[in-house]
Amino acid sequence: MKNLIIASTSTVHGSGYLDYIFEELTVLFKDAQTILFIPYARPSGISHNDYTQKAKKALSKIGKKAVGIHTFKNPVQAIKDAQAIFTGGGNTFVLVNQLYKNNLITALKETVTSGTPYLGTSAGSNICGLSLKTTNDMPIVCPPSFNTLGLVPFNINPHYLDPDTNSKHMGETRETRIKEFHNYNTPPVIGLREGSWLHVIGNSIILKGDLKARIFEHNKIPYEVNSGTQLNHIK
Amino acid sequence: MKNLIIASTSTVHGSGYLDYIFEELTVLFKDAQTILFIPYARPSGISHNDYTQKAKKALSKIGKKAVGIHTFKNPVQAIKDAQAIFTGGGNTFVLVNQLYKNNLITALKETVTSGTPYLGTSAGSNICGLSLKTTNDMPIVCPPSFNTLGLVPFNINPHYLDPDTNSKHMGETRETRIKEFHNYNTPPVIGLREGSWLHVIGNSIILKGDLKARIFEHNKIPYEVNSGTQLNHIK
Repeated sequence: MKNLIIASTSTVHGSGYLDYIFEELTVLFKDAQTILFIPYARPSGISHNDYTQKAKKALSKIGKKAVGIHTFKNPVQAIKDAQAIFTGGGNTFVLVNQLYKNNLITALKETVTSGTPYLGTSAGSNICGLSLKTTNDMPIVCPPSFNTLGLVPFNINPHYLDPDTNSKHMGETRETRIKEFHNYNTPPVIGLREGSWLHVIGNSIILKGDLKARIFEHNKIPYEVNSGTQLNHIK
Repeated sequence: MKNLIIASTSTVHGSGYLDYIFEELTVLFKDAQTILFIPYARPSGISHNDYTQKAKKALSKIGKKAVGIHTFKNPVQAIKDAQAIFTGGGNTFVLVNQLYKNNLITALKETVTSGTPYLGTSAGSNICGLSLKTTNDMPIVCPPSFNTLGLVPFNINPHYLDPDTNSKHMGETRETRIKEFHNYNTPPVIGLREGSWLHVIGNSIILKGDLKARIFEHNKIPYEVNSGTQLNHIK
């Protein structure tokens, strides 16, 4: 039975890495001593080792060990053998490219679908959707495909930002970008504000955290849902 | 001899479409009665016809006609025959995908290199660089390649935004994103603020407009250049 936390961000303003979500992680990772960390998204270009150190330090606060997937000779086997998996944020294109390069897309999808607990933050959440087409990241590398894990039947937009009505900047708002997405794609998009996450258990998908989420469905006016809402009908 | 204006934006806050740059366009388009408009980037998903109408209306203010490339049976020939070309902004992935689909990359590169005056705004400027890898846009479609026209020997980041030091949002700043680009790519990136443009004539590349631009070179600290600076040494 699937058991995932798909979080908008690793860090909310003013607190430490993963701090806001430790309570949930204690439950998610209750049967795991060691978490397999996937550092491929490399935020700000930091190394796999440095990024894993950061995750290690944070997860030690709830008594868990973390080990980087890059330290395994056979990363496919590392995923299959994992007690739990955490994919950190950074650049989604870099992450997806590396997952394809190491032939991990199928292994990750199958392992998480069959019940290995999974935490994704930011880019690590984007990949839980159908494609990376609603990432906010810069396309700094070209992955072989935009298709991702499809662990939920829609796309994620993490770090969802409401339009800044005071802005004089002429770039598109997030809502405009997602509207453009729906000119070429039909899957729904869930805009997850920082501090929000989806908890997926089996067929249940519940919005958690203090904030509402914004739902974009093809040919519908976008709408808000409250924390606690069951979202498994969105597909 | 190349003759291009590569503009950060079509529109600066508080004025109409292309208004701020009409004086330059009068000179750029002095020998052209009719401008071939490439509406492929479809901002907010508007149709090719509607977008062309918008360009038509604006260019009529300086006595020019505009005609959409989508109205030609043979778009490659339309580019070769054009008196001048304008590629509007919108989504860079959609634009590049359509250029590849219609087999226009080579024709556009050759035609502009051989002297047909060219105006690009936003996405239409991104494609003048080496690749789309420094676009700000959402990857809502997957083009066959990220490589673009290479009319200048670097990449463009249009709508360049300085970090907002008051922001509580945890997404990456533009500078962080470009720094990540340089972990995987060596070409320089020119961050063009709204209201800035590059004027390329032959081998000369001069920054124009009221604002400075920010230059990002591989393994160097980013730096500012003033309007009027010759940038042809950046490669």
